[in-house]
Amino acid sequence: MPEATFAAWRARVEAALDHALPAPHDSPQRLHAAMRHGVLNGGKRMRPMLAYAAGTAFGADPAQLDAAAVAVELVHCYSLVHDDLPAMDDDALRRGQPTVHVAFDEATAILAGDALQALAFAALAHAPQPAGSRVAMLAELAHASGAAGMCGGQALDIDATGKAGAIGIDGLQRLHALKTGALLRASVRLGAIAAGADEASRIALDRYADALGLAFQVRDDLLDIEGDAATLGKTAGKDVAQDKATFPALLGIEASRARLAELSAVMHDALAGLAVETAALAALARKVVERDN
Amino acid sequence: MPEATFAAWRARVEAALDHALPAPHDSPQRLHAAMRHGVLNGGKRMRPMLAYAAGTAFGADPAQLDAAAVAVELVHCYSLVHDDLPAMDDDALRRGQPTVHVAFDEATAILAGDALQALAFAALAHAPQPAGSRVAMLAELAHASGAAGMCGGQALDIDATGKAGAIGIDGLQRLHALKTGALLRASVRLGAIAAGADEASRIALDRYADALGLAFQVRDDLLDIEGDAATLGKTAGKDVAQDKATFPALLGIEASRARLAELSAVMHDALAGLAVETAALAALARKVVERDN
Repeated sequence: MPEATFAAWRARVEAALDHALPAPHDSPQRLHAAMRHGVLNGGKRMRPMLAYAAGTAFGADPAQLDAAAVAVELVHCYSLVHDDLPAMDDDALRRGQPTVHVAFDEATAILAGDALQALAFAALAHAPQPAGSRVAMLAELAHASGAAGMCGGQALDIDATGKAGAIGIDGLQRLHALKTGALLRASVRLGAIAAGADEASRIALDRYADALGLAFQVRDDLLDIEGDAATLGKTAGKDVAQDKATFPALLGIEASRARLAELSAVMHDALAGLAVETAALAALARKVVERDN
Repeated sequence: MPEATFAAWRARVEAALDHALPAPHDSPQRLHAAMRHGVLNGGKRMRPMLAYAAGTAFGADPAQLDAAAVAVELVHCYSLVHDDLPAMDDDALRRGQPTVHVAFDEATAILAGDALQALAFAALAHAPQPAGSRVAMLAELAHASGAAGMCGGQALDIDATGKAGAIGIDGLQRLHALKTGALLRASVRLGAIAAGADEASRIALDRYADALGLAFQVRDDLLDIEGDAATLGKTAGKDVAQDKATFPALLGIEASRARLAELSAVMHDALAGLAVETAALAALARKVVERDN
């Protein structure tokens, strides 16, 4: 898959996010500026890429996928804004920039996150798909974001912090299946629903997405140990400092790398079962496994 | 309107909220318990009452309105959970009970609020209306909750705190039209959309709802001065202590009471223009103007 395709999708989603966000000079300016700071920050846009890749594989035009791409990215960004708060991960740096509560203040960061979540659902409600597909996409995103998905995973993560040994590998996998996996899976699903993919294909896509979500986290944990702040754009070594349950802490570094290779094979296998062009989805799988920030 | 009708609706929405919320014994228990604590707390359920009153006026059965009632109440409750946080209003008491971050912790309160917002959209996505109506309801709720509605109003409120004189009466009205008005209006609208009310009726309902939202806030401001913590179930006198812009602070107490009477007349007038039975909507207008907690 040529990098040019990803670059084109990235340009699309940046423009669509900019357009979806409230204008910086409209009142309340401080809230709007904080929302924009939390979103327009040079993120990798992995979730939008998954939505575009899944949707175009099943014949959708990228323009039909912008709303889905925007919605999943807005949910991801709001979760980072809240995650960085002093009462949560207490991070001052995100992608090399001050986090929202540092650049603004805590109250504004809480509200900006809340407003970004609402904006994600507003974006989907105005997607170009027929109402039935839109409702299915809205239901999917709401489920993936809430207590049975991302928020639930974050709660499990908080419970596990400071007791790395207690959670076990199954518990850690469940934690990440919710915390990061649910939204990554929803990103693929929203693209597939928007494109009208058939049910059998959606099941194979779920296998791909679930492996990708787990691989994403295993790689993330390894990066926290191997990486440095300059490459990561955030503080390295925090997991160990906070005694967080991670794959390297539970399995060891070598076994974590082996797990990543297994997950890579699962993704490859799932895509091989689809009757459509899956080069972009395969390229994203490689990016997740090989990324260094 | 007999109180028995409101009591029946209240029983409906309590049961529907209980059913929509995640079970307390399922993992992650602490998150689920915090979500339930933030919602099942003896609230007055004003927003659900508005949804039921508007929807039944246009011929819907209460059972068709439960999802709308649940959704608007969940958004209201999540906003209270976040509003009470130390970085926001820093309230330890809500309806006579410890607030969520006091009963649990700040991180859990942030996540519980986030998950409640997602749950509101999930509830609406599964409403019994046709997909087209559901999308319209979802779009309405997302707009009313976000930067152009409730979150925007809260941001304006933060900007205005500590400078009661600077905002002016027009600024204060705009603040409340967003902060509390947008969701009250959405509550009425969701009921009307769910019932398939015609466009002309929806315009009259908007007039009613906008006056009700403003009346709600004028009454709230007066109660903060006149009320006591035992009746209010929350700390009284906070507005003055924080030098918050309020209607009594800007207009005086007597003029604020006169404004309330004017708004009452606007509501009465708006309802008189509707060709349906509006006794419940009229009774809710009276409750807002006359409430003492």
